[in-house]
Amino acid sequence: MSERRNSAPDQRADRDATAARLSAEQEREIEDLRAQTAPTRRAVAPALEKILYEALPVLDRGFVRVIDYMGDDAAIVQAARVSYGRGTRQVSSDRGLINYLMRMRHTSPFEMCEIKLHVKLPIFVARQWIRHRTASVNEYSARYSVLDDEFYLPSAEHLATQSATNRQGRAEALEGSAAAAALDALETNAAEAYGRYVELLNEGEDGQPLDPERAGLARELARMVLPLNAYTQWYWKIDLHNLLHFVALRADPHAQYEIRAYAEVLLDIVRRWVPLTHAAFVDYRLEGAELSAKALAVVRRMLRGETVEQAGSGLNPREWRELQALLAQD
Amino acid sequence: MSERRNSAPDQRADRDATAARLSAEQEREIEDLRAQTAPTRRAVAPALEKILYEALPVLDRGFVRVIDYMGDDAAIVQAARVSYGRGTRQVSSDRGLINYLMRMRHTSPFEMCEIKLHVKLPIFVARQWIRHRTASVNEYSARYSVLDDEFYLPSAEHLATQSATNRQGRAEALEGSAAAAALDALETNAAEAYGRYVELLNEGEDGQPLDPERAGLARELARMVLPLNAYTQWYWKIDLHNLLHFVALRADPHAQYEIRAYAEVLLDIVRRWVPLTHAAFVDYRLEGAELSAKALAVVRRMLRGETVEQAGSGLNPREWRELQALLAQD
Amino acid sequence: MSERRNSAPDQRADRDATAARLSAEQEREIEDLRAQTAPTRRAVAPALEKILYEALPVLDRGFVRVIDYMGDDAAIVQAARVSYGRGTRQVSSDRGLINYLMRMRHTSPFEMCEIKLHVKLPIFVARQWIRHRTASVNEYSARYSVLDDEFYLPSAEHLATQSATNRQGRAEALEGSAAAAALDALETNAAEAYGRYVELLNEGEDGQPLDPERAGLARELARMVLPLNAYTQWYWKIDLHNLLHFVALRADPHAQYEIRAYAEVLLDIVRRWVPLTHAAFVDYRLEGAELSAKALAVVRRMLRGETVEQAGSGLNPREWRELQALLAQD
Amino acid sequence: MSERRNSAPDQRADRDATAARLSAEQEREIEDLRAQTAPTRRAVAPALEKILYEALPVLDRGFVRVIDYMGDDAAIVQAARVSYGRGTRQVSSDRGLINYLMRMRHTSPFEMCEIKLHVKLPIFVARQWIRHRTASVNEYSARYSVLDDEFYLPSAEHLATQSATNRQGRAEALEGSAAAAALDALETNAAEAYGRYVELLNEGEDGQPLDPERAGLARELARMVLPLNAYTQWYWKIDLHNLLHFVALRADPHAQYEIRAYAEVLLDIVRRWVPLTHAAFVDYRLEGAELSAKALAVVRRMLRGETVEQAGSGLNPREWRELQALLAQD
Repeated sequence: MSERRNSAPDQRADRDATAARLSAEQEREIEDLRAQTAPTRRAVAPALEKILYEALPVLDRGFVRVIDYMGDDAAIVQAARVSYGRGTRQVSSDRGLINYLMRMRHTSPFEMCEIKLHVKLPIFVARQWIRHRTASVNEYSARYSVLDDEFYLPSAEHLATQSATNRQGRAEALEGSAAAAALDALETNAAEAYGRYVELLNEGEDGQPLDPERAGLARELARMVLPLNAYTQWYWKIDLHNLLHFVALRADPHAQYEIRAYAEVLLDIVRRWVPLTHAAFVDYRLEGAELSAKALAVVRRMLRGETVEQAGSGLNPREWRELQALLAQD
Repeated sequence: MSERRNSAPDQRADRDATAARLSAEQEREIEDLRAQTAPTRRAVAPALEKILYEALPVLDRGFVRVIDYMGDDAAIVQAARVSYGRGTRQVSSDRGLINYLMRMRHTSPFEMCEIKLHVKLPIFVARQWIRHRTASVNEYSARYSVLDDEFYLPSAEHLATQSATNRQGRAEALEGSAAAAALDALETNAAEAYGRYVELLNEGEDGQPLDPERAGLARELARMVLPLNAYTQWYWKIDLHNLLHFVALRADPHAQYEIRAYAEVLLDIVRRWVPLTHAAFVDYRLEGAELSAKALAVVRRMLRGETVEQAGSGLNPREWRELQALLAQD
Repeated sequence: MSERRNSAPDQRADRDATAARLSAEQEREIEDLRAQTAPTRRAVAPALEKILYEALPVLDRGFVRVIDYMGDDAAIVQAARVSYGRGTRQVSSDRGLINYLMRMRHTSPFEMCEIKLHVKLPIFVARQWIRHRTASVNEYSARYSVLDDEFYLPSAEHLATQSATNRQGRAEALEGSAAAAALDALETNAAEAYGRYVELLNEGEDGQPLDPERAGLARELARMVLPLNAYTQWYWKIDLHNLLHFVALRADPHAQYEIRAYAEVLLDIVRRWVPLTHAAFVDYRLEGAELSAKALAVVRRMLRGETVEQAGSGLNPREWRELQALLAQD
Repeated sequence: MSERRNSAPDQRADRDATAARLSAEQEREIEDLRAQTAPTRRAVAPALEKILYEALPVLDRGFVRVIDYMGDDAAIVQAARVSYGRGTRQVSSDRGLINYLMRMRHTSPFEMCEIKLHVKLPIFVARQWIRHRTASVNEYSARYSVLDDEFYLPSAEHLATQSATNRQGRAEALEGSAAAAALDALETNAAEAYGRYVELLNEGEDGQPLDPERAGLARELARMVLPLNAYTQWYWKIDLHNLLHFVALRADPHAQYEIRAYAEVLLDIVRRWVPLTHAAFVDYRLEGAELSAKALAVVRRMLRGETVEQAGSGLNPREWRELQALLAQD
C-alpha cells in the first residue's frame, strides 16, 4: 500500500525530485516483480514483457503500469478462425486477416485479448475515464485508507485559457504573471485542503492521533475537502477492442489534454503488445475519417471537377471547414 | 440549464433557505412539465405519475427527480410470458409469478422495466454511484459550463468519527466544539475553493470577464480546485433489475450514509412504481439473508438441539457474531 | 400464450392464408390493448403510438411489435442539457444539437431513449441477433412450453446460390427445378422434424398424451429435433444508441438477407419514434462512409489532379474497388 | 479449421470410437501447442498450465479447452489492495482476504482474472449459454464454413421423460423400447437433416460440386435444415467473477442437464486455476443458501422451540418444502 508523504511545506521541492513518483519501497517491490520469470505455455508478447510492471510516467506524478496481459496478434487470428492450434500461417497472412477484421469492424476477435493496468491519475481525469463502462476497475479506497499528499499541477505550457470559439476547449497558454498566479492558486488550494484533511482526520503517519484529546472525523467524510486534482489510483482491466475504442476517443484532439496524455501512453503499449493490430488501428481508425452522406456528395462533385462552395454544399460552416481541412492535409 | 448563484459571502444565509435546492426558474420549469398530460396506449403507473418531475429532497441540497419510466408490474408478467396481450390474469396471479421470478432469480423480466432520473449529488457520492456500470449516464459538464456554488455539508448527527473496529466505517457523531470545528473547516474549504474557482475563471454571471485585463483559465482546468463535496448532477437511466441491485448494495448498512440516503429514496420510488415487485424484493432480498455452507451447518446442529460454540462452528469470530445477531432478531 | 397449430398436412395451405401470422385470439388481444389509452405526464411520440402493439410483418411468418418506448427527440436534447424542463427551444435548435451529438459520437444522450419490442423470428436469425449484448431479452421457453409448427421458408427470390467470390455471401437466385427441389427439401425437413417432435413429446394440443401407454420425452430434449428455421419469439428491450448500432450493422449489405429484413423494419420504427435522430443517423452513419488513412491519401491526390492507379495507391485490390465504387455513386 | 467428416452411413460406428471427438490433425495441433513454453514475468497458475489446450470431454462429442488465462489467487489480493508488488503476505492471509471479498460480494477484484476457452457444444446448449452477456464470444461461422456431421445424442440415462410436477423439468429415464424409439428418432432426424444439408450445398469435402450440373444453395441458407442438437463451437472469454456467476446458475439442479455437464467442467477448471477462490465460492455460494425474510422468521421461531407448521409460516407450500429440505440436510 502506498505511503503517505509529508504535506505542504516540502511540496515544491518534492515536485522537482524525479524520485517523487514512487517511494523507494514501491520501486523495490516493482524490481522484485520484474526479477522473476516462470515458464508458460500461453501466448507471450516479448516487447510487452520488457516493460511489465514498470511505471510509465504521465503528467507530473501519474503513471501507467502494465500488470498482466492475455494474448497477442496471433491469438486474434486464432480466435477469428476458432482454431485448434496457434496456426502455422505466416505473418503476412495474419496481417491481412487483422486488417480485414479491423476494416469490417469484426470486433469479437479483438475482444479475445485482455490487459490489466495499474494507473495513477488525478481524480478529474478518473471521472472522465470511468465513463468507459466495458472495463473492470478496483480503486484505492479513501473510505478505508488515507490519501497521499499528491496533486496534479499543470506545467506552464498546459495552463491554458478558455477558448472563445469552443465552449469546452482551450486556447493558448496563460502568460507571465497570470500563469504564476494561476499556478500559485492551484498549489495553495491543494496545500490548504490537504492540511485540513490531516487536521480533520487527526491521524499521524504512524496511525496515532495527532491530538490525543479529540476524535478524528471518519476517513470517508474527511476526504470531502480534497480537490479534484488530487491523485488517486486503480487497477483497470479491459479487452483490446474496448481499449482501442478508449484510445480513439481519448487520444482525439477534442479530448482534454490531461486524459490525452494517458491515451498516448496506452497507444504505445498497444504498439508493443500487438503490432499488427496497432498498425491496422492507426490506418483504419486513428488516421482515417468518417464522411457524412453530405460530405461524400461534396467530394464526388469536386472529383467531377465542379467548384463547390459552402453555401450550396449542404454542410454547415463548421462541417465545411472541417471537410476542407481534412482534404487539404498532407 | 442551472443558474450559478453568488459565491462565498452569502453562503451561510443561503443554506437556511428551503428554496435553496432549486432556483425559482427551475421550479417554474418543473411546474410547467407537471401541468401537461397527453394520452398514451402504454402501461401507466399512476402512483409514479403523481410525483413525476418533482425534486425529491436528499441530503442538504441534493435531489432525485423521476423524468420518465417504462412498464409496471403487469409488464413484468407480460414479458415473462412473452404474451400478446397485457394479460387478463388477476393481481393475485401476477403477485405469485413475480414472487416466483424474484425467488428463482429469473432476472430478465425485471430488466423489461426502465426508469430515468435526474439526480443532484455530491461528487464523492457520484464516484461511488458510477461504479454501477449497467446504467446510462449523462452528466452536467464542467468542461462546458460553470459549476454552481453548492457543496454538501453534513448535519451534526452525520459528522461522524472514524470507527475503531471497522476501517471503512463510522462511529458516533463528533461532539460540541469538535463538531463545530469540523463543520467550519468544511465550509471554509468550500468557500475558499469556490472563490479561487471564480478568480481562475475570471468570469462573471453575465459571462463577461471580471477583470477585463486578463484571460481566464479554461473551465476544464479551473474546476480542479473544487473539493469532492461540490454538487454535480446527471441524468441516469437504469432497468428495474439493476436498480434493485443498486438499492440492495447501497441501502445496506455497510454503505456510506450519504449514498444510502439516495438509495432509500430510490426504494420508495420502486414502491410507487411496481408495488408487487417492491414487496417481493423486500422479502427475498432486502430483509432476507445469505447463509454460507458453514453457517447452515451450524443452524442445522442448533435445530437438532446441540449447543454450538464459535470454537467448533467452523465460522470465524466475525461470521459467528453476525450469525448470532441474525438469528436473534425479532 | 401462442397456440400450437396443426402439423404437416395442412402446412402448405396454411402458408397462403394471410391470417397465418397471428391466431384470432392473438389478434383480439392486440386489438384490446390498442383500444385503451390513459393520460401520462411523460414524453409521447404520436407517430409511434399509432402503431403500438401492431404486428409489423417480416419474412413469411415473423413480425416486430412495439410494446413500449421511453422518450422522444426532445428527451435527447433534455438529457444532453441535463435540464430541469423539457426545453422551450425550437425544433431547429433541437435538430442542430441532435446533428452535433450524432456527428461527434456523443452517445450518452441517445442512450436516454429506450424501446421494447416483441419479435417473432427464425432461430438462425435469433442466433445472430443475440450477439448484440447491450439489450435485454426474454425468450419463449421451449423447456417450459411446446413450440408451434412454424418454419421460415424463403420466397423464390431469396433462395440464393452460394457466392463464388464472397465466402459468406449469396449470388443470384436458384432457378426453376433447382429452386423447387430446394424449397421441397426445406419443407419436408421441417414437416418431418415437427412430426418427430410431436411424437417424442407424445402430447396433444389438449395437453393429454397422444398414446396413453407411454411417457413422452421431456420438452427440453424433444426440441433438439427442430431445425434452425423454426420460429421462436422474444421480448427485446434496447436503448436508442444501441438500436442504431444494431441497425447500422444489420441493415448493411454484408448482413444476411433474413436479419436485414428485420433491421429495415426497425429503421422505420426509429423514423416514426425520433424523426430528427433518424435523419441525423441516415446522414452521418447509414449513408456516410469511413475512409482509412490510405484511402484519404488517394482522395487527396485525386483532388490535386493526379491520376492514381491501384498499384501505387497503398490499397489492396478489394479496398481499391470499394473506394472507386463509393466515389462514383450518385 | 475443423475437418468435415462423412455423413450418415458411418455415424453409429463413429460414435463408438473414442477418437471421434477430435480429428488426428486437431490432436496434432494441440500437441504442438502443448510442447512449447516460453518465460513470462506474469502470474502463472501451474495446475492450470498442466491442462492448457487439452480437450476436456463433455457430453458425447463436446469439449472445453482452456486456451489462455490471466491472473491467479494472488492477483485477486493484489488488485484488492491496489498494490505495487505481488505482496509478500502468506497464503493464510490471502485466504482470509479472499473469503472476506466473496462473503461481502466485493466483486471487482474477482473481475481482475480472465480466462479464454474453446468450447464445442450442441446448438441448444449454446443458446442457453449465450444469455450470459458479460463475456466475449467468437463462434464458428456457418455462413462462411460448412458444419461437421456431429450431433448430440443423449446416453440412455439422460433420455428423460417430462416431469409432471415441474413444467420445465425432467423425471425418470425412458425405458426399454421407448428409449430405443426416441434415440432412433433423434439419430434418424440428424442423419436425414445432414443428408439434406449436403445435398442443398452440393459441395463435396474437396470443395467441388457433387453435381456439376447445378448450383448449390448458399451456406447461410442451407444450414437452416440442421437440428438444434448439431454441434457448434466457439472461443469464449470471461472474467472470474462472471464465470462464477455462470457456474452458480448453470451447475444448479434447476439447469438443464446438458449445460450442467459443462458447468461442472468449468468448476473444476476454477479449482485448478484459483484454489482459494474456489473454496470460498463453494462455501459462500454453491453450498450456501439464501433465506427470505419469511423463511428467516420461521427458523428463528424453530430455534426458540416453537413448533411451526406450513399453514402459519407465511411460506407457500413449495417454499415450505424447500426450507424443510434445506434444514434437514446433513
